[in-house]
Amino acid sequence: MRVHGQSYRTIFLADDGWTVAVIDQTRLPFAFELRYLQSAVEAADAIRDMVIRGAPLIGVTAAYGLALGMRSDPTDEGLGRAVELLAATRPTAVNLRWALDRVASLLRAASPEKRAEVAYAEAGTIAEEDVAACAAIGRHGFAILERLYAGRRGQPLRVLTHCNAGWLACVDWGTALAPVYAAHEAGIPVHVYADETRPRNQGASLTAFELGAHGVPCTVIADNTGGHLMQHGLVDLCIVGSDRTTATGDVANKIGTYLKALAAHDNGVPFYAALPSSTIDWTLDDGVRDVPIEERSPREVTHVRGRADDGRVLEVEVVAPGSTVENPGFDVTPARLVTGIITERGVAPASREGLAALYPERAGS
Amino acid sequence: MRVHGQSYRTIFLADDGWTVAVIDQTRLPFAFELRYLQSAVEAADAIRDMVIRGAPLIGVTAAYGLALGMRSDPTDEGLGRAVELLAATRPTAVNLRWALDRVASLLRAASPEKRAEVAYAEAGTIAEEDVAACAAIGRHGFAILERLYAGRRGQPLRVLTHCNAGWLACVDWGTALAPVYAAHEAGIPVHVYADETRPRNQGASLTAFELGAHGVPCTVIADNTGGHLMQHGLVDLCIVGSDRTTATGDVANKIGTYLKALAAHDNGVPFYAALPSSTIDWTLDDGVRDVPIEERSPREVTHVRGRADDGRVLEVEVVAPGSTVENPGFDVTPARLVTGIITERGVAPASREGLAALYPERAGS
Repeated sequence: MRVHGQSYRTIFLADDGWTVAVIDQTRLPFAFELRYLQSAVEAADAIRDMVIRGAPLIGVTAAYGLALGMRSDPTDEGLGRAVELLAATRPTAVNLRWALDRVASLLRAASPEKRAEVAYAEAGTIAEEDVAACAAIGRHGFAILERLYAGRRGQPLRVLTHCNAGWLACVDWGTALAPVYAAHEAGIPVHVYADETRPRNQGASLTAFELGAHGVPCTVIADNTGGHLMQHGLVDLCIVGSDRTTATGDVANKIGTYLKALAAHDNGVPFYAALPSSTIDWTLDDGVRDVPIEERSPREVTHVRGRADDGRVLEVEVVAPGSTVENPGFDVTPARLVTGIITERGVAPASREGLAALYPERAGS
Repeated sequence: MRVHGQSYRTIFLADDGWTVAVIDQTRLPFAFELRYLQSAVEAADAIRDMVIRGAPLIGVTAAYGLALGMRSDPTDEGLGRAVELLAATRPTAVNLRWALDRVASLLRAASPEKRAEVAYAEAGTIAEEDVAACAAIGRHGFAILERLYAGRRGQPLRVLTHCNAGWLACVDWGTALAPVYAAHEAGIPVHVYADETRPRNQGASLTAFELGAHGVPCTVIADNTGGHLMQHGLVDLCIVGSDRTTATGDVANKIGTYLKALAAHDNGVPFYAALPSSTIDWTLDDGVRDVPIEERSPREVTHVRGRADDGRVLEVEVVAPGSTVENPGFDVTPARLVTGIITERGVAPASREGLAALYPERAGS
């Protein structure tokens, strides 16, 4: 997508052909800077510290992290260590494990001297597949937006989203925002309500940044506000991403997603999750019971990062000193609250039958 | 309640007998300072700028604001101007109008030279009534907490609250937190989950501060988190305050309350609103349709106030530059989601019949 008039992906190889360049998302929205990764450790740090984030991009970065690891130590031991290091960074995103398994199984079959080359090639393939999957999600979701827009008599279609599931969460296009970009390209006026998404404010910083940079109108709201807007008929549909979706259609996504799904359900607003099928965990049936939820640092709640009047970006403390804090990173929206799941193969009802019909080769696994 | 070992009310007369002292809530939780009001204009500013906030305290402050106005201009014109000035500060809190009407009708019947004295006396009476009402709310709510605690087999009772409806929102005790303080005093272990309550963070700053100062255990969570906690059985009940409640039991309260009520309903968690009957607007039947919702400054969303590492309290910008913002201050929780309304006369079902049974003399008005 475009930033300052130039096209970018969130991750790509630098001119030297092996260093992995990523957009440093901890610097957005106030600075647009690249970060260069040259080892598996640097890739793991980038995932853990959320220099990059978003389930699809985490998967691609982990794949490149393995490739970097193979440059320095392509032995079986080195492979095992790199996989372990990268797998331990973020427990909820299923793409992380999926991408590592996919690359590692190829590497185990390859001789050590070939492993770096094989890993780079496979990471590149995963990245290209993600771009294609997001583009396909955009096309399938576009049909939903087009249909809803027909009822708006020329007024902009109002889409509420939570957190950031745009191109910054993927390699390009995004998942939840891919249909929005597709509608925008097609000349359908779209207006996005972006939940701020405390504690890390990905909505206010990343979603608002990327939509603004691409020219899509966007209004930032506090996480508390979406229910009120839906009560008053001001939202036409919700679209969110997912970090892990069960075989039965339960959607694990950024903490707070469940509250918006409840409000959508209470007000008859369609609620969609958009995700590549690599995000589906075919082994899980009950998301609330079974999806591991990452407990993140209390500091994300006690402190807020922002730009002071003098231009410095710094953290300020916002919680009464001495308070304890809990900070689960994700919640699970039960399938009964999800209107449909938009995947690269089409839109499925949020149910075992619905997902199995789109992915018959996976549903039995 | 107690701060640094000393008992305070949120509003009281200074030693000179006429200056109105309030706790400056914009300085909390990092500094505990008093602000002194000496004119109706200063009282109106304090209400508008949220130096003081909370429906009951707004009412008491407005009453004292009229008294300050009568000191400088006790004519009919002066009275009219002071009422108009104070009434325009906050549109949602019904106590504001209620307190102004109550004092103004007495003043109109009094001769100008008596008006300041009458107004001070009536403002003092309103303050004392608020303390008594909050204490009674505490007793009635305590019975609910005591009953739920019986099912906890000695484990702490976990109460989720939104925004601040504690003693800082009132003169003493609070509304939503009065039952919590009553349980704490009675030796029932209570643990409060305080929603941060963006955009102004009253939960993280005020609720966490006042509970901490009084010794009640408190965990601050992002506004996004409560649904996840309720899904996992970690909340025994929710109690919130109210800025205006309809005759039918719809509860207008800080933006985001509706989302927590939905989650409580979805998970079988009791959801109570605690409020003095002065908060009930007997003229309204449909809260979502009829309660005016204050749209507040975008800056509350785009900026967050906090304490930097060097100890300075400042505002930092947190939203991508150029984004538009919407900032409604309240939402309405339909009565169907409210388990009961805790008032100074007892606990009523959230319905016209329930409220009318407790307040037969008002229900027909």
